[in-house]
Amino acid sequence: MIILFGVFIRYDEESDTHWVETKAHDNITSDIENDFYFRYPSFQDVHVMIFVGFGFLMTFLKRYSFGAVGFNFLIASFGLQWALLMQGWFHSLDPQTGKIFIGVESLINADFCVAGCLIAYGAVLGKVSPVQLLVMTLFGVTLFAVEEYIILNLLHARDAGGSMVIHTFGGYYGLAISRVLYRPNLHQSKRMQGSVYHSDTFAMIGTLFLWMFWPSFNSAITDHGDGQHRAVINTYLCLASTVLTTVAISSLSQKTGKLDMVRIITMSDDLSNSTLAGGVALGTAAEFMISPYGALIVGFFCGIISTMGYIFISPFLEKTLKIQDTCGIHNLHAMPGVIGGIVGAITAAAASESVYGKQGLINTFDFTGDFKDRTVLTQGGYQAAGMCVSIVFGVVGGAIVGSILKLPIWGDPADENCFDDEVYWESSGGKHFCFSF
Amino acid sequence: MIILFGVFIRYDEESDTHWVETKAHDNITSDIENDFYFRYPSFQDVHVMIFVGFGFLMTFLKRYSFGAVGFNFLIASFGLQWALLMQGWFHSLDPQTGKIFIGVESLINADFCVAGCLIAYGAVLGKVSPVQLLVMTLFGVTLFAVEEYIILNLLHARDAGGSMVIHTFGGYYGLAISRVLYRPNLHQSKRMQGSVYHSDTFAMIGTLFLWMFWPSFNSAITDHGDGQHRAVINTYLCLASTVLTTVAISSLSQKTGKLDMVRIITMSDDLSNSTLAGGVALGTAAEFMISPYGALIVGFFCGIISTMGYIFISPFLEKTLKIQDTCGIHNLHAMPGVIGGIVGAITAAAASESVYGKQGLINTFDFTGDFKDRTVLTQGGYQAAGMCVSIVFGVVGGAIVGSILKLPIWGDPADENCFDDEVYWESSGGKHFCFSF
Amino acid sequence: MIILFGVFIRYDEESDTHWVETKAHDNITSDIENDFYFRYPSFQDVHVMIFVGFGFLMTFLKRYSFGAVGFNFLIASFGLQWALLMQGWFHSLDPQTGKIFIGVESLINADFCVAGCLIAYGAVLGKVSPVQLLVMTLFGVTLFAVEEYIILNLLHARDAGGSMVIHTFGGYYGLAISRVLYRPNLHQSKRMQGSVYHSDTFAMIGTLFLWMFWPSFNSAITDHGDGQHRAVINTYLCLASTVLTTVAISSLSQKTGKLDMVRIITMSDDLSNSTLAGGVALGTAAEFMISPYGALIVGFFCGIISTMGYIFISPFLEKTLKIQDTCGIHNLHAMPGVIGGIVGAITAAAASESVYGKQGLINTFDFTGDFKDRTVLTQGGYQAAGMCVSIVFGVVGGAIVGSILKLPIWGDPADENCFDDEVYWESSGGKHFCFSF
Repeated sequence: MIILFGVFIRYDEESDTHWVETKAHDNITSDIENDFYFRYPSFQDVHVMIFVGFGFLMTFLKRYSFGAVGFNFLIASFGLQWALLMQGWFHSLDPQTGKIFIGVESLINADFCVAGCLIAYGAVLGKVSPVQLLVMTLFGVTLFAVEEYIILNLLHARDAGGSMVIHTFGGYYGLAISRVLYRPNLHQSKRMQGSVYHSDTFAMIGTLFLWMFWPSFNSAITDHGDGQHRAVINTYLCLASTVLTTVAISSLSQKTGKLDMVRIITMSDDLSNSTLAGGVALGTAAEFMISPYGALIVGFFCGIISTMGYIFISPFLEKTLKIQDTCGIHNLHAMPGVIGGIVGAITAAAASESVYGKQGLINTFDFTGDFKDRTVLTQGGYQAAGMCVSIVFGVVGGAIVGSILKLPIWGDPADENCFDDEVYWESSGGKHFCFSF
Repeated sequence: MIILFGVFIRYDEESDTHWVETKAHDNITSDIENDFYFRYPSFQDVHVMIFVGFGFLMTFLKRYSFGAVGFNFLIASFGLQWALLMQGWFHSLDPQTGKIFIGVESLINADFCVAGCLIAYGAVLGKVSPVQLLVMTLFGVTLFAVEEYIILNLLHARDAGGSMVIHTFGGYYGLAISRVLYRPNLHQSKRMQGSVYHSDTFAMIGTLFLWMFWPSFNSAITDHGDGQHRAVINTYLCLASTVLTTVAISSLSQKTGKLDMVRIITMSDDLSNSTLAGGVALGTAAEFMISPYGALIVGFFCGIISTMGYIFISPFLEKTLKIQDTCGIHNLHAMPGVIGGIVGAITAAAASESVYGKQGLINTFDFTGDFKDRTVLTQGGYQAAGMCVSIVFGVVGGAIVGSILKLPIWGDPADENCFDDEVYWESSGGKHFCFSF
Repeated sequence: MIILFGVFIRYDEESDTHWVETKAHDNITSDIENDFYFRYPSFQDVHVMIFVGFGFLMTFLKRYSFGAVGFNFLIASFGLQWALLMQGWFHSLDPQTGKIFIGVESLINADFCVAGCLIAYGAVLGKVSPVQLLVMTLFGVTLFAVEEYIILNLLHARDAGGSMVIHTFGGYYGLAISRVLYRPNLHQSKRMQGSVYHSDTFAMIGTLFLWMFWPSFNSAITDHGDGQHRAVINTYLCLASTVLTTVAISSLSQKTGKLDMVRIITMSDDLSNSTLAGGVALGTAAEFMISPYGALIVGFFCGIISTMGYIFISPFLEKTLKIQDTCGIHNLHAMPGVIGGIVGAITAAAASESVYGKQGLINTFDFTGDFKDRTVLTQGGYQAAGMCVSIVFGVVGGAIVGSILKLPIWGDPADENCFDDEVYWESSGGKHFCFSF
């Protein structure tokens, strides 16, 4: 890794000491116009989502907190280095010098790429070894970079919040791997699959940090100025709407009228977190002029579909399709991601100069260079094509990587040891804990 | 909600794709001058305070973590949508188009409005049903918008951090409701009212995130530039001073010399969090030239009064006035809010051109338009009037809403089931937990 | 404190209402060029590191969560007020008016100063009384300000992330105090020294917030523009690299192949957190053109040395040198701090105009005024000299302060009561808790 970085990676012009000259040359009058000040607060929010959000979201299992947070930490740290290289080669390799120039936007993109792999981790949580996770991440990042290159550069689809590129791909990649690694005797570790009161409270920390910072996620790499501003407003509204819908549906679906904790705030057993689905579903369209009530509508439907997914689709997946989805990523990422792709395609196709303004339309869809003459309808088509590319990459890529991971050389835990920190972690307090709970 | 948003809510000009034209028209040279970059980092901090800060601050009860964080999440998500509408109608309805134009500042204001309702929730924590909370929030937001309109627009009082508008109103609103809903037999759920070691540690997370981000709260909507800068410095100093005073008073008041956890860091039993009182008390005056030592003095007195409140006033409220204040919001919000209003009135009346500068005085108090000729003394009077308005709205509004909530149709928990997650939440780990603790 | 603030502390020009005139005078066209917008997001991240990061990092002990977070809160709040005064007197006392003018950068520096004292707290965690902590902080901040003045102003060394000024000084200061306060019978509180499952999970919160926000720490006071941008990239890469190395070394060092929780994610017993060492070691060089692969190399070596430190050096320190280092700050701060100082010296000495550009070199090392003619080689020498100053101040200062703390007037806990919250905190849930764990 060090050698590859030595050969390829350099600072970009805004993070290089020569910027003082570049700046004068470009007539930039103030240091504040460095891209750093546009992106850094969003970057830190995304960073919190990756490490605290995803990590703690998966702590709901009663005896797998270390595995959730710790392995999340490990694969994210590995993945982001590899992502800087892979994304660099595919997106920003300078043809003249053969170097990759990185800045704060590259760091955000690397975090995004890692997010795809962490989503996939959610499907196999507690059932794989750290080495398997590293292999999964290695291939996951590579597939991600290729898929992203096809969708964003070749098809020129827009996907600022990554509904397609991150969530759909990551979701199906993880589900396909989980299918290949199907364990018929997983019930042997049933005693470890529940949650306890405090593990659910820890999971709330993850949920809330993801929920709060999702507007930053969807706006982190959108256009400066009104683009970032609009993406934040849309995501904020959509998420608020999803929460209400989820609670309503969840209460209706129960005879007792109690709120089901697992479906609202935390994940527990095989259920996950519908409140976040709105953020996923608005990933593609967040920067578009979807209008505030449009964002509410997306959130409304997404809350319904995701909650229904936990009640009807997850059991179906497990029993019929033999996909064991520990964190319910199908309901939280894969399905909302597909919805997001569709919403994005429709919104793009329905864009008009009267709503966006002439220059606004060009800015939003980046109709410049080779794509100068593209119409919004064509753009909608390419968005839909991007959607399909991400599904195909997820399913096929996951099936292949799953087959590699099925080889009996990776030290995966036995069926009865799944979901148990004891296998991979040494903890002084473990024994006492066992007595207490 | 979707329909109302469809009819009324639109993007403001800085979050609209037409900004590219507006910008050129207004001679703005750089995207960084979009209001987004002035406000967004503060907005995210406030957002964390609302969802993690307020939520976890209330997790101190041993068996009510889900209720604290979960209902907080629910009413905040509902409240902010309703607040965008209500505040829009009262503050920013465009008379020509009949539309409300929203941007990042609207989102911050909606979060502020929700804060008022969450404060009120603190007084009735564990004693009401989710439906009662939604009703309380619906009326709370409405009252808030009216009261805010009277104080900020009609009286033209300044209240950037909301000592009066948010804390005083929210505090008395909650206390009045709690008075009307008085439960003489609450001791029947005594076994649920304590805290346990880990629930106190979770509450610390809430306390710390509120404490740390309070400078962002008080500066989020102050004037660009020096206004935000000054509000941060003042709040930071005031909070640091409050911590020391609280610890000192708390140690003095105990014969054993031990620190009482509940009065310093977390809330436990019927005690709450004096360390935060400084931030509340500086809400109004944060943007004024109160000077660094002025901020320390406010923090000093506030620490004394709030800590004394827990020792002497809370038992008095409960026994004599029959106000059962679960989280001690009288000491954390209502009383410090009133102090804040008084400090604001005095500081405003004492302002002078020699300290502020001619233009600085006009900027700080916004002496423009209809208020061009107002003197600082008059301003001080209007600040005090604003203070009274917020108390009246809180007490009267709370009494009325409390009467509505007393109707036996809302499914509130029985006395012996208060403070217990089991009533409204299904949790797989619950049973095991009960044995352990 | 209030009197001292009244006499000395004033708003600086960018947080004063007169800024409206200053701005016009300096030809600043936009409010966004106020230093507030350059520094505030980083400040808030640093603030979270100080209060949540350091606080929760020390919660690993099974019965000392309140002590860790609560005393951390107390001494940080006290320290930052004192630091504003001390740093003001030494660094920014205006000779004409005799006043100290503070802005957001002063707040960051005060937080940095406090960080040094919190590091020292890590060495004596659980073994001292709150009064001892306050005395330790009082002298610690004073020594810090003098040492910082010598290193940054007199020697004109660069140390943006404080490898030398903060971590080396803080580390050796704490270790020296711990040596003087050596308790031969500490094994009497052995039952309290372990961690439990949930206390380790709380410690993860601390670790992650420190890890995530470390790029903000190292970039908070570097040069506007490319300086902050570069410091973030370097720290981000270095930390990611450290995580991988730590996990690899940790796995190799164990026959069972299990990951040892304590050495990776949380601190437990006498072990601490190697994953953070990379951030410490890049403190000095973060703003230099160390290049991305250079950052990876630093992280790589730092991970090795820090992990080895836990295995070999910590037991040696305890047995032979009689230094009881509760949190292992020697491995997390002192040693990586020294490495950081050395890396900084070498990188500075190796700087060249071809890499930095003529103006870039001057900006980065601030070769202006009295230091106009300094060469990079001389600069390297002064960096190394700064390193030595910080070690000397830490060791000698710590020895003296330790002797003061040894006086039997401070109410320190008996050997058998160490690491136990019961001594200083009253907690309603304590008794129940004792039964459970």
